[in-house]
Amino acid sequence: MFREDSPEEECGVLGIFAPKEDVARMAYFGLSALQHRGQEAAGIAVSDGQTLRLHKDIGLVSQVFDPLTLSKIKGDFAIGHTRYSTTGSSSARNAQPFLIDTQYGPIALAHNGNLINAAELRQELLKKGIGLSSTSDTEVMTMMLACSKGDTWFDRLKDAILHWKGAFSLVILTRDQVFAVRDPWGFHPLNVGMLPGGGHVAASEVGALRTLGCEAYREVLPGEIIALSNTAMIAFQAVPIPEQTAFCTFENIYFSRPDNVFDGKSVHAIRQRLGENLAKESPVEADVVIPVPDSSIPAAIGFSRESGIPYNDGFIKNRYIGRTFIEPNDSLRQLGIALKYNVIMENVLDKRVVMVDDSIVRGNTTGPLIQLLKAAGVKEVHLRITCPPIKHPCFMGVDMGTYDELIAHRCTVDEICRKVGADSLSYLSLQGMMSAIGREEGYCNACFTGLYPIPPTIGMTKTGFEQSIGE
Amino acid sequence: MFREDSPEEECGVLGIFAPKEDVARMAYFGLSALQHRGQEAAGIAVSDGQTLRLHKDIGLVSQVFDPLTLSKIKGDFAIGHTRYSTTGSSSARNAQPFLIDTQYGPIALAHNGNLINAAELRQELLKKGIGLSSTSDTEVMTMMLACSKGDTWFDRLKDAILHWKGAFSLVILTRDQVFAVRDPWGFHPLNVGMLPGGGHVAASEVGALRTLGCEAYREVLPGEIIALSNTAMIAFQAVPIPEQTAFCTFENIYFSRPDNVFDGKSVHAIRQRLGENLAKESPVEADVVIPVPDSSIPAAIGFSRESGIPYNDGFIKNRYIGRTFIEPNDSLRQLGIALKYNVIMENVLDKRVVMVDDSIVRGNTTGPLIQLLKAAGVKEVHLRITCPPIKHPCFMGVDMGTYDELIAHRCTVDEICRKVGADSLSYLSLQGMMSAIGREEGYCNACFTGLYPIPPTIGMTKTGFEQSIGE
Amino acid sequence: MFREDSPEEECGVLGIFAPKEDVARMAYFGLSALQHRGQEAAGIAVSDGQTLRLHKDIGLVSQVFDPLTLSKIKGDFAIGHTRYSTTGSSSARNAQPFLIDTQYGPIALAHNGNLINAAELRQELLKKGIGLSSTSDTEVMTMMLACSKGDTWFDRLKDAILHWKGAFSLVILTRDQVFAVRDPWGFHPLNVGMLPGGGHVAASEVGALRTLGCEAYREVLPGEIIALSNTAMIAFQAVPIPEQTAFCTFENIYFSRPDNVFDGKSVHAIRQRLGENLAKESPVEADVVIPVPDSSIPAAIGFSRESGIPYNDGFIKNRYIGRTFIEPNDSLRQLGIALKYNVIMENVLDKRVVMVDDSIVRGNTTGPLIQLLKAAGVKEVHLRITCPPIKHPCFMGVDMGTYDELIAHRCTVDEICRKVGADSLSYLSLQGMMSAIGREEGYCNACFTGLYPIPPTIGMTKTGFEQSIGE
Amino acid sequence: MFREDSPEEECGVLGIFAPKEDVARMAYFGLSALQHRGQEAAGIAVSDGQTLRLHKDIGLVSQVFDPLTLSKIKGDFAIGHTRYSTTGSSSARNAQPFLIDTQYGPIALAHNGNLINAAELRQELLKKGIGLSSTSDTEVMTMMLACSKGDTWFDRLKDAILHWKGAFSLVILTRDQVFAVRDPWGFHPLNVGMLPGGGHVAASEVGALRTLGCEAYREVLPGEIIALSNTAMIAFQAVPIPEQTAFCTFENIYFSRPDNVFDGKSVHAIRQRLGENLAKESPVEADVVIPVPDSSIPAAIGFSRESGIPYNDGFIKNRYIGRTFIEPNDSLRQLGIALKYNVIMENVLDKRVVMVDDSIVRGNTTGPLIQLLKAAGVKEVHLRITCPPIKHPCFMGVDMGTYDELIAHRCTVDEICRKVGADSLSYLSLQGMMSAIGREEGYCNACFTGLYPIPPTIGMTKTGFEQSIGE
Ligand SMILES: Nc1ncnc2c1ncn2[C@@H]1O[C@H](COP(=O)(O)OP(=O)(O)O)[C@@H](O)[C@H]1O
Ligand SMILES: Nc1ncnc2c1ncn2[C@@H]1O[C@H](COP(=O)(O)OP(=O)(O)O)[C@@H](O)[C@H]1O
Ligand SMILES: Nc1ncnc2c1ncn2[C@@H]1O[C@H](COP(=O)(O)OP(=O)(O)O)[C@@H](O)[C@H]1O
Ligand SMILES: Nc1ncnc2c1ncn2[C@@H]1O[C@H](COP(=O)(O)OP(=O)(O)O)[C@@H](O)[C@H]1O
Ligand code: SF4
Ligand code: SF4
Ligand code: SF4
Ligand code: SF4
Ligand SMILES: [Mg+2]
Ligand SMILES: [Mg+2]
Ligand SMILES: [Mg+2]
Ligand SMILES: [Mg+2]
Repeated sequence: MFREDSPEEECGVLGIFAPKEDVARMAYFGLSALQHRGQEAAGIAVSDGQTLRLHKDIGLVSQVFDPLTLSKIKGDFAIGHTRYSTTGSSSARNAQPFLIDTQYGPIALAHNGNLINAAELRQELLKKGIGLSSTSDTEVMTMMLACSKGDTWFDRLKDAILHWKGAFSLVILTRDQVFAVRDPWGFHPLNVGMLPGGGHVAASEVGALRTLGCEAYREVLPGEIIALSNTAMIAFQAVPIPEQTAFCTFENIYFSRPDNVFDGKSVHAIRQRLGENLAKESPVEADVVIPVPDSSIPAAIGFSRESGIPYNDGFIKNRYIGRTFIEPNDSLRQLGIALKYNVIMENVLDKRVVMVDDSIVRGNTTGPLIQLLKAAGVKEVHLRITCPPIKHPCFMGVDMGTYDELIAHRCTVDEICRKVGADSLSYLSLQGMMSAIGREEGYCNACFTGLYPIPPTIGMTKTGFEQSIGE
Repeated sequence: MFREDSPEEECGVLGIFAPKEDVARMAYFGLSALQHRGQEAAGIAVSDGQTLRLHKDIGLVSQVFDPLTLSKIKGDFAIGHTRYSTTGSSSARNAQPFLIDTQYGPIALAHNGNLINAAELRQELLKKGIGLSSTSDTEVMTMMLACSKGDTWFDRLKDAILHWKGAFSLVILTRDQVFAVRDPWGFHPLNVGMLPGGGHVAASEVGALRTLGCEAYREVLPGEIIALSNTAMIAFQAVPIPEQTAFCTFENIYFSRPDNVFDGKSVHAIRQRLGENLAKESPVEADVVIPVPDSSIPAAIGFSRESGIPYNDGFIKNRYIGRTFIEPNDSLRQLGIALKYNVIMENVLDKRVVMVDDSIVRGNTTGPLIQLLKAAGVKEVHLRITCPPIKHPCFMGVDMGTYDELIAHRCTVDEICRKVGADSLSYLSLQGMMSAIGREEGYCNACFTGLYPIPPTIGMTKTGFEQSIGE
Repeated sequence: MFREDSPEEECGVLGIFAPKEDVARMAYFGLSALQHRGQEAAGIAVSDGQTLRLHKDIGLVSQVFDPLTLSKIKGDFAIGHTRYSTTGSSSARNAQPFLIDTQYGPIALAHNGNLINAAELRQELLKKGIGLSSTSDTEVMTMMLACSKGDTWFDRLKDAILHWKGAFSLVILTRDQVFAVRDPWGFHPLNVGMLPGGGHVAASEVGALRTLGCEAYREVLPGEIIALSNTAMIAFQAVPIPEQTAFCTFENIYFSRPDNVFDGKSVHAIRQRLGENLAKESPVEADVVIPVPDSSIPAAIGFSRESGIPYNDGFIKNRYIGRTFIEPNDSLRQLGIALKYNVIMENVLDKRVVMVDDSIVRGNTTGPLIQLLKAAGVKEVHLRITCPPIKHPCFMGVDMGTYDELIAHRCTVDEICRKVGADSLSYLSLQGMMSAIGREEGYCNACFTGLYPIPPTIGMTKTGFEQSIGE
Repeated sequence: MFREDSPEEECGVLGIFAPKEDVARMAYFGLSALQHRGQEAAGIAVSDGQTLRLHKDIGLVSQVFDPLTLSKIKGDFAIGHTRYSTTGSSSARNAQPFLIDTQYGPIALAHNGNLINAAELRQELLKKGIGLSSTSDTEVMTMMLACSKGDTWFDRLKDAILHWKGAFSLVILTRDQVFAVRDPWGFHPLNVGMLPGGGHVAASEVGALRTLGCEAYREVLPGEIIALSNTAMIAFQAVPIPEQTAFCTFENIYFSRPDNVFDGKSVHAIRQRLGENLAKESPVEADVVIPVPDSSIPAAIGFSRESGIPYNDGFIKNRYIGRTFIEPNDSLRQLGIALKYNVIMENVLDKRVVMVDDSIVRGNTTGPLIQLLKAAGVKEVHLRITCPPIKHPCFMGVDMGTYDELIAHRCTVDEICRKVGADSLSYLSLQGMMSAIGREEGYCNACFTGLYPIPPTIGMTKTGFEQSIGE
C-alpha cells in the first residue's frame, strides 16, 4: 500500500581504513549518509588487525547501532552496509556484511549489486561440498574468496573477480586491509577518498565521503581493485574494462542522492538537464512546474528553467509514513496515496500543472497523485517523465518487477496517459536522456531498450534454492 | 551537536469522533501527518463510550504503536498527541495525552502550547491537596477540569478555560465526547474537518485532516470550544477574543508544514511572499538562490521569483541523522554540520549565492553552513533571513533559549554577519514579514519586538517544582 | 492453563535509607529477594534529598532494570515494589511505587495489601475534585497523604492511617525520609533491619533484609509507623492494635518464603509443624511422603518426620515454564499439568504415596497431579492438605476467587477426594493449623471460617470505576 | 560474582517428527524442559518437507520465542537447542541449530558435547576452501556433512561420524528427516520416545519426552544413528562401540535433572545412593543433614536416610538472582553468596550440620556458604561431597576450568577443609561413586582420575581461531 512505485534492491557500501580512529563510529555516520540506498538492514564489521568483529541487524542504521554495540567493535579497519527496503518483515540472515573465517584468515564482504551468474556459482560451491547459510550472492562471493588460490588476498581477489558476471560494487575487510572493488561494467557507483588525518574511505556515494571529511576523492574505475591505505592507495586494474562499460542509467534517474557524482558528472546537474531536455522535447503551455518529491525536484527545476514556467512545490510528502507496518483500515485504504502526499492547494488551484516524475514502473502511484491534484482544483495535469518507458526487467539487481508488472510493457504511452488520468504524458527520449547524462555510450539502458550489457541466461531468474532455506 | 538552530517545544494534537470506525488506526495515520511537530513521544487515548484506554510512549508514532497496541484501544472517540523533540533521553512521564478518572467520569487531554500561569495554577492545585504526577502544565489543566464545578464537561470547560493564560490548542476526550479548544489569543493552529462517512476530526494542521480524508474544514476560532459530533459540530465562543489575537508568527516562519493553512492563509504561499519581500527589501547581485532545506524552500522559491535569480538546490540534508544518540568522536565533531548537510558543488561552484534561511536563533549552524559553501568554492554568500532578528525569549511555549543565548540579543546585524562569515546579511523587516502574512495586527511578534501579548510575570520562568519529581 | 491453583495478589515492598550508598542498586538486590511475592511488575523510587526519581515497568526485577536505568536514580533513600503475577498481559499503569508531587513536596508509596474501603475513599477523593490516573488503591492512599492536614509527613500519615481499613504493609518515600507502615491488624508481614554500615532497611520478608546484610531486625508492629534513620529508628504506634490482630494465616501456609519470620516464628518451622500435625491428625499407612514442590516441601518433611514414612521427591517442577505466553496446541493442552510437572518414577513406582500440598483453591491442578502419579505406577495416593478447606473469598487482597470458584464451597471433602481421584484426602483442622502456628488467636482465618476480622461491606467487591479507565 | 562453582558448557537438544502437528510449538515446550541444560541461547529449526526455517537468539526459551516467531516456522519436522549459560554477554553467532544449504539440500544441526579434534577438522575444512562463520564445532560438523560423499543423508552421516572424536549428542534436520546421533562413547544422554498420536521425539533428557507426552522411550545407544519416523524408528549402529563406553559421570552428579534416566538408571535414585554411600564411607555425628539446593537435594535425602540423621532445608536459594547483569556495589559485594542464599536459621541453630554438595570445582562458593551457616549460629559444619576431588580438566566439553583453577589440583583435602572453614570434609570415593551409579566400567571419570577415554592431544586446547572472528 505504501510501497511506492520505485525500483528497489539497491544497497550502500562503505569501507574505512583510519589508523587510530574509532572506525566503527565513523562507519556509523558514513552509513547514515548512505541510508537512502537501503533502509531494511545495516551492518558494520571491524578489524583491529587481528580479530574481525561484526554487528548487523534489521532496521535503520540508527536503530541497529547504539553506543554499546559500537563500543564492542573497535579497530582501524571497517566495512559497512545498508540494505534496500522491502515491504513486510525480512530476514536478518541475509543482512550484510558477511563474515567468515578461512584458511587465509578472516574476511568480511559487503556488496551492492547482483551477480547474474550467482545460481551457477552457487551450484559450483555446493558441489564442492561447501554449505551456504543464506540465499545471498554475497555469501557466494565470500565463499569463493575462501576457496580461491593465490598467495595474498589481492591475488585471490584478482582470481575470483574473473568469475563474477554482473553488478558488484564491493568493500572487503581482512585482518589488515580494506579493499574496494567494482565490476568491469561499472554498473553502480563506488568512490574512494582521502581522510585529512590519514587513511582512506570507500563509499557508494561521495556524500558519505564528504560526511566523513574526505578531501580528495575519485571513482573506483570499472574492473578496479583498490586497497585502502594510510597514505597512497594501491589501485589495480584487475579486469580489463569490456568494450563498453554499463553504468546503470537509473543511478542518475533515481537511486543516487543528488549530491552524488557518477561517471564524473554531478547527479543533480544531470537531473536538471533531464528536466531541461524534457522541456525541449515535450513543451507544454502551463502555469506551474511541480516535482513529485523528492526524486524529481532537480528535474522539475530544470524543466522550469528551460520552459520559463515557474517552479513551485505542489505536494508535501510525509517523510514519516514510509516504513509503517500498520495496515490502514478500509476507509483509510480508499485514501491510498493521500496518506502520504498532500497537495499544497494554493500553489496549483486553477492552474495548468506540469508534474515531473522520475519514472513510472508499475504505474500504481501516478494515477492517484493526479487524482489528488484534480480534486484540489487543478485545471490540467501534464505528466513529464525524465526517462523513456521502462519495458524490460533488470537482471542486474534492480527490482523493476517482472515483464507483466511493467505498465509500459503492457500499454502504449497513450494508454498509460488515459489510465493515470493525465491531460498529456511525455517520456523523455533515450537520446534526450543520454544527452543529459552527457555520453552516448558506456551506459546500461536495458530496462528501456532490452539490450542487456550481459546477455540474460536461464540463470538470471532466481532459482530454486530459496526454497531450501526459508527467510 | 546535531541539534540544529531551531526553536523547539511545539506539539501536534488530534481528536477524532468517527462512529464505527477504528479510530485508533485513524489517529495513528493522523498523528504521522503531525510528526514534524514533535518527534519525542506519541500517544493515543480512545473511548468506546464507557472506558478510556491509553497508550503512549517515547519515540516516533511508528515506534510507539504496533498492530497489537492499536488493537487494544478500540472505540469511536480518540485523541492523540506528538511531542516535540529534545536532545538526549527524556521521560515517558510527561508524554501525552493525560488520562484521569474524575468524579464526573474519565477524561483525557492533549495540549499544544504553554500556560504562562502554570506555576500559580499548579500551586493552587497542590494547596487543594491534589497530588501531581508530572511537571507538565497539561496535567494541571486536566486536574482543573476534575475539580471544576458545572453540570457538564462543556460547562466545566467553559469555567476552567477562563483561568488559563497562555497558549493552548487542546483536544479533550471524555466517555462520549471529543472537544477541540483554542486559547483566546489563538497562538497555535487548530482545525476541524468533516469525515465523508460521518464524524469529525480536529487537528493542529490541515495536513492531518486531509490525510484522513476530511472534506470540509475550518479553523477552531480563538477562544472557541468545539464538540465534535456525528453531523453538525457544536461550536461555542467560550472566551471573548481579546482586543487583539496573537497568532504565533513563528508558525508561519517555521513550525507549520507548508501545506498548512493558518489564519486563513496558505503557509506555503506566505513563505513564498516572505522570500519575495526579502528580495524586494534586500536585493543583491547573485547567480543562484538556495534554501537551507527543508524549512526555507518556499521562501527561496519566492526570492528567486521576485529577484529573477535562478533557484536551485545547494544543500542536501541527511534526513536520517537527525535523531541519533551516537556522539561523534573528535575528528567527526570537527566536521560538525557537515555530518548532516552536503553541498551540491556543481550548483554553487564559483557562484555568488543567496542563501535563504528561516531564522537565526542561537546562531550555531549558520556559520558552519556558510563555511561548507565557501569550502566548496562559492564566490560570495549573501544570507537572507525571512524574519527580523530574534531578540527576546518566548514565554508561550516555544523554546527560543534565554536572552543570553539569542545571538541577535547580543550582537548587531553587522556583527552577526561577520561571525557567520557571510558577505552580506539581511533580515526581513517586521513590516515585510507582516505584509507577507497579509495582516498588520493580530499576530504575536514578541520574540522580535519584546511586546508580549500577555505581560510576562515572575511565574513565567520555570519554577522549582521540577526538582521535586525527576524526569 | 499454566495458572496453578494458588491464591494470588500478593506483593513485596522494600524501603532503604542508607547514607552514601547506591540505594537503587541495593533496592534491586533486595527486590530480587522478594520476587516470589510478585512477578508481574517491579519499580524503584529514589530520593537524593531533593528530587524523587522513579523507574517501574512490567516484568521481573531483572527485566525492568539495567545498569543504565539504575544509574539514573541515585540517592540515599529508596523504596521498591514487586507486584503479583496474573495471567495474560497487564498494565504498567498500576505498577508501583506511585510518585506524586504535593503541596508538601514529593512523595512515593508502595503497598502490599488491599483496602476494603478503597471504593469509598476513592469516591471521596473524586468528590473533592481530585483526578486519579489508575484503578489502584495505592494511588488512593498516596493522594490522601497529599490532601491530609498536619505539619509533617509523620503527622499526616498518622491522620490518614486512621481512615484506612484493610491490609496495608507500606513503604513511603519523601524527600528525606523513608517510612514503614503496617495496618493495625497486621495482615501481612513487614520487617525492619539495621545495616552494618549505618542506615536501615524495611522489607516484607526478612530474607530481603538478610540479602542486604542487615544484622538486627524486628517486625514492624501492627499499627506502627517507623521512620528509617541513620542510627536509631523512630517507631510510633499510630493506631491502637484492635482487640485482635489478624495476621494472614496464608502467609504461613503459602505466601512467605520459608526463610521468613512472621509473628516471631519461622515460617519453615511452622510448615514443618503443619506437616507433623497433619500426620498426627490423619495418619495413613504408606511408603513415601512427597511434596508438591516448592510450597509444601517443609510440610512434607514434617509429615515424614512425624509419621516415620520416608520423605522423597516425587515431582520435578519445571521452573521455566511458569510465565510463558505461548498457548499449547490441542495435543499439548491435553497434557496439561504434565507440561510443568514430571514424576520421578523410581521414587514412587508401586508405592503408597502421601502427597502433601499446601491448599486446594479452585481444585484444577490436584486431580491432574494425582493422575500423573497413577500413570507412573503409584499404588495409592493419599492427599494431605496443610490447612482446612477454603470456603470463603478473601476481601483483604488475596485472590482466592469467588464463592463459586472455590471447590470447598461447592463440594464436601469426600466429593473433592473423588473428584481429584485420591485414595484418601484429609485437610488439617483449624486447631491443628493454629497449633502449628503456635497461637490460637490474633490470626485471620476468614477464608476457612467466614469470620472476617473486618466485616465485609458492599464496598469490598470491586466497584465500577475500573470501567472508566482501561488497563 | 554470581557465577556459582559449577561445571558449565552443557546443552540440551531436541528433535521432533510429528506429522500434522505444530512441531515448533512442541519444540518450544520440549526445550523449556531442557532449559536447565543451558540458559544462554535457544533455537528451533523446522522443515515443512521443502524449506528449512530457523529462529534462534540469545536468551531463555521464553524470551527467544513469541507467538509470532513460532507461527513463522511451521512444519512436520523440527530440531531445537538450548545453550549453556556463561557470565557476561555472548554472541548470537554461536547459537544453534546451525542451518545451511548444501548440494544435497538444506540441513540443520544441533549439538550437545565437544569434539576434541575440532581444531584439526576445522583446519581441514578451511584448507578445502570452506569458509566458517563461527568458532563452533557444530558448524564444523554441519559443513562436514555438506561435503561428505554418499547417496543419502544417512550414508553421509555414517561417513562423517567416523571422523568425529569426542562427545556429541546430535539432532539433525533435513527436508524430510530428523536424525538423532550419539557418539560411540555415549558421553552425554540422548533419548527417543514415541508420540501417542504418531511420530517420534528425541531429546537429551526423558523429562522433555514426557513433557511432550511420549509413551515409550529408550536411550539412543552409543554410536547409534536413529531416524525418527511416523511409526517404527530406523536405528542403525553407525560406529562400533569402543571397548569401553565413557558415559559422563557428571551427568549423574550434577547436569541431568533428577527425573532423567541415564544408562538405564534413574538419576534421582543414583543421587540418593551417592548420599547413602557417602554416609557409609564418612559417617559423622550430627543433628541435621542439609543440601545445597537444588543439585544436592537427592543426595542429602540419601545421606539422611542412611545415617538416620534428620533431613531438613538449611538454605533458601533465590532462583531469580541467577542471571542478573547488575554488578553489586562494594558493600553488597562483601555479602557475596548471601545475595543468593539465605540460611533458614531455626533449622540449623546450635546444630551440628552435615552439608551435602555435589562437587567442588574452583571452590569459591563453598567457603562463603559455610560462613553463612556459622554466622547463623551453627555449631559444626561437616561438608560431604558426592564425588571425588576434581583434579583434571575435562576436554570433552564440560568447562571445569584449567588445572590451575581446580582447587583439588592445588590443595589436599585437608587444605581444602581448612580453606572453606568446615569442621570436617569428606569426598565420596571413586568406588563409592561408581557403586552408586551401579557399574564399575563404561563411565568417564577423567576429571577425577586423569584417565581420559580419548587421549588428549594438542588439539584439545582451544586454538587460535577464536581470534579470527570475534564473538
Ligand atoms: N535529503 C535529500 N534531499 C534530496 N534528495 C534526496 C534526499 N535524500 C534522498 N534523496 C533522493 O531522493 C530520491 C528518492 O526519492 P523519493 O521520491 O523521495 O523516494 P520514493 O520515490 O522512493 O518514495 C533518491 O534519488 C534519493 O537519492
Ligand atoms: N515533507 C516536507 N516537505 C516540506 N517541508 C516539510 C516537510 N516536513 C516538514 N516540513 C517542514 O520543514 C520545516 C522544518 O524544517 P527543517 O529545516 O527541515 O528542520 P530543522 O531546521 O529543524 O532541521 C517545518 O516548517 C516543517 O513543517
Ligand atoms: N527458592 C525457594 N525455595 C523454597 N521455597 C521457595 C523458594 N522460592 C519461593 N519459595 C516458596 O515457594 C512457595 C511457592 O510455591 P510453589 O509451589 O513453588 O508455587 P506455586 O504453587 O504458586 O506454583 C512460596 O511459599 C514461596 O515463598
Ligand atoms: N525443578 C528442579 N527440581 C530439582 N532439580 C532441578 C530442577 N531444575 C533443575 N534441577 C537440577 O538442579 C541441578 C542444578 O543445581 P543447582 O544447584 O540449582 O544449580 P547451580 O549449582 O548451578 O546453581 C541440576 O542437577 C539440575 O538438573
Ligand atoms: S537495466 Fe536499468 S536498472 Fe538495471 S542496470 Fe541497466 S539501467 Fe540500471
Ligand atoms: S514570542 Fe515568537 S515564538 Fe513565541 S508565540 Fe510570539 S511569535 Fe510565536
Ligand atoms: S481471608 Fe485468608 S488469605 Fe485473606 S487475609 Fe484472611 S487468612 Fe489471609
Ligand atoms: S572428564 Fe568429567 S565432566 Fe568431562 S566427560 Fe569425563 S566425567 Fe564428564
Ligand atoms: Mg519518488
Ligand atoms: Mg531548517
Ligand atoms: Mg505450589
Ligand atoms: Mg548447586
